[in-house]
Amino acid sequence: MSGTVYGVGLGPGNPDLMSVRADRLVRNARHVAFFRKAGRKGQARQIVEGMLHPDAVEIPMEYPVTTEIPLDDPRYNEVLSGFYADCVARLCALTPTGDVVVLCEGDPFFYGSFMHLFIRLQGRCPVEVVPAITGMSGAWTASGAPITWGDDVLTVLMATLPEAELTRRMADTDALVVMKIGRNIDKVRRALTAAGRADQAWLVEYAAMPQQRVIRLAEAGECVTPYFSIVLVHGQGRRP
Amino acid sequence: MSGTVYGVGLGPGNPDLMSVRADRLVRNARHVAFFRKAGRKGQARQIVEGMLHPDAVEIPMEYPVTTEIPLDDPRYNEVLSGFYADCVARLCALTPTGDVVVLCEGDPFFYGSFMHLFIRLQGRCPVEVVPAITGMSGAWTASGAPITWGDDVLTVLMATLPEAELTRRMADTDALVVMKIGRNIDKVRRALTAAGRADQAWLVEYAAMPQQRVIRLAEAGECVTPYFSIVLVHGQGRRP
Repeated sequence: MSGTVYGVGLGPGNPDLMSVRADRLVRNARHVAFFRKAGRKGQARQIVEGMLHPDAVEIPMEYPVTTEIPLDDPRYNEVLSGFYADCVARLCALTPTGDVVVLCEGDPFFYGSFMHLFIRLQGRCPVEVVPAITGMSGAWTASGAPITWGDDVLTVLMATLPEAELTRRMADTDALVVMKIGRNIDKVRRALTAAGRADQAWLVEYAAMPQQRVIRLAEAGECVTPYFSIVLVHGQGRRP
Repeated sequence: MSGTVYGVGLGPGNPDLMSVRADRLVRNARHVAFFRKAGRKGQARQIVEGMLHPDAVEIPMEYPVTTEIPLDDPRYNEVLSGFYADCVARLCALTPTGDVVVLCEGDPFFYGSFMHLFIRLQGRCPVEVVPAITGMSGAWTASGAPITWGDDVLTVLMATLPEAELTRRMADTDALVVMKIGRNIDKVRRALTAAGRADQAWLVEYAAMPQQRVIRLAEAGECVTPYFSIVLVHGQGRRP
C-alpha cells in the first residue's frame, strides 16, 4: 500500500476559494511540500497558514536559482532539472508512509510549477492533481465584469513574450488575459497601445487576497507591480 | 437590511470541486435559483443534489426558447431579454427576506449565463459573484496532462464560430481549448485537420463527473457528443 502524491491547487489566494477536496487534503495531510524562494516563506505555504494538521511535517522545496542565470542559458535548464529530480526523489521516498500533499498556487496544470514534478513522478509513484480556481478567474471576478460573452475568443498571453508577438495577438482577440506582468509592465503597456487596446485594459494585483487592487491600466502610471499581477481586456460579445 | 444575490460558481460538476465558500453558501441558502430547459431538472441543480437546506425554496428559471428561434433572428434577443428581466425582478423581490443563491455551472464570469442577470441586477440590489473551477480546468485535469507550459499561448474558442475562423486560430496557437462542441463536432474536426492539429486533439466529455470520458479526437469516429464537451490541444512549451 503506497500513498499518493497530490498536486493540490489552492486557487488564487483566498483559502475560502480552495475546493472542498483541496481543503480536506490540506487539513489532513501529514506531509506537506511546497516550492519557495530561498529565504522566503513561500506564497503557497502562506495561503494555508493556520490550516495544517498539528502533526504535519513541512517539506520546503527551495529553488536553487531564480534570476541569477538567464532563461536561455543551458545551465538554467540543467540546474532546474536536477532540482526537480531531487524533489521527486524526496516526495517518492515519503509515499510508503502515506499521502503527500504538494501545495500549488492557482491551478496545477495551468502554467504551474507542479507539472515539472508531475511528469517526473509518473510511473514512479501514484500521483494525482486537484484542479483549482485559476489566478485569472480570481482576477476577472475581482474586476467585477464578465471576461467573455457569447462567441468571444479568449487569448491568454505571458508578458514574457516578445513585444511584437504580444502586439499582434492583443490586436487579434476579443478578450485578453496577460499573466506574469511584474517587470514586463512597460512592454505590456506599449504592446496594448500599439494594438489599440490600452484604453480597455485593467490591471489586477493580488486578486482574491487582502491587498487586492483593480485599476485601469491607463491610470496605473509608472508603477512597480508584482510578478503575479494580471492584465485583462474584457470581451464585449453577444448579449441579449 | 437587504440580502445579496450571489452568483455561485459550482465548478465543472463534482460537488467536491466546489469552493469552500460556494459549498457554505449553497448549504445555507433559503432561496436557490437556477436556469434550466423546460422539462429538465437542470444541470446546475443536479450538481447540488442532496446539499440544499431542508427549508430551501427552489426557484427554477426556465429558458423560454433554446433552438426554436435562430441566434441571428432579432426575436431571439427580444425573447431572451424579456426572460432575463423577469428573472431579475423575481430575484430582487426576494432580497428583502435575505440572500438568494443562483447556481451557476462552471465559473460565472467565463461564458456563463449568470452574467446576463448580473448586468441587470447591478444598481437594483446587492450582487456578488463567487468564482469557480472552469469546465476547461476540469477537462485538462481529466486529460492527465498540463495544458500550458512556460510561455505557451492559450486560445479559447467556441465551436459555434465559422469554420475558417476556427481553422485560422487553431493553426496560430500553442495550446487550445474549444468549448460548446455538441453538434459542431464535425466542423471542429475539419478545422483541426486543416490547421494541422487534429492528431494532437483530445475530446473530453463530462469532465469531473461520473460519466467522464477522455479520448483522442482521432479515435472518436463519427459520434454524438454533449454540448458541454471540450476539445483540447496541449501546449508543448519550455520545460527543464
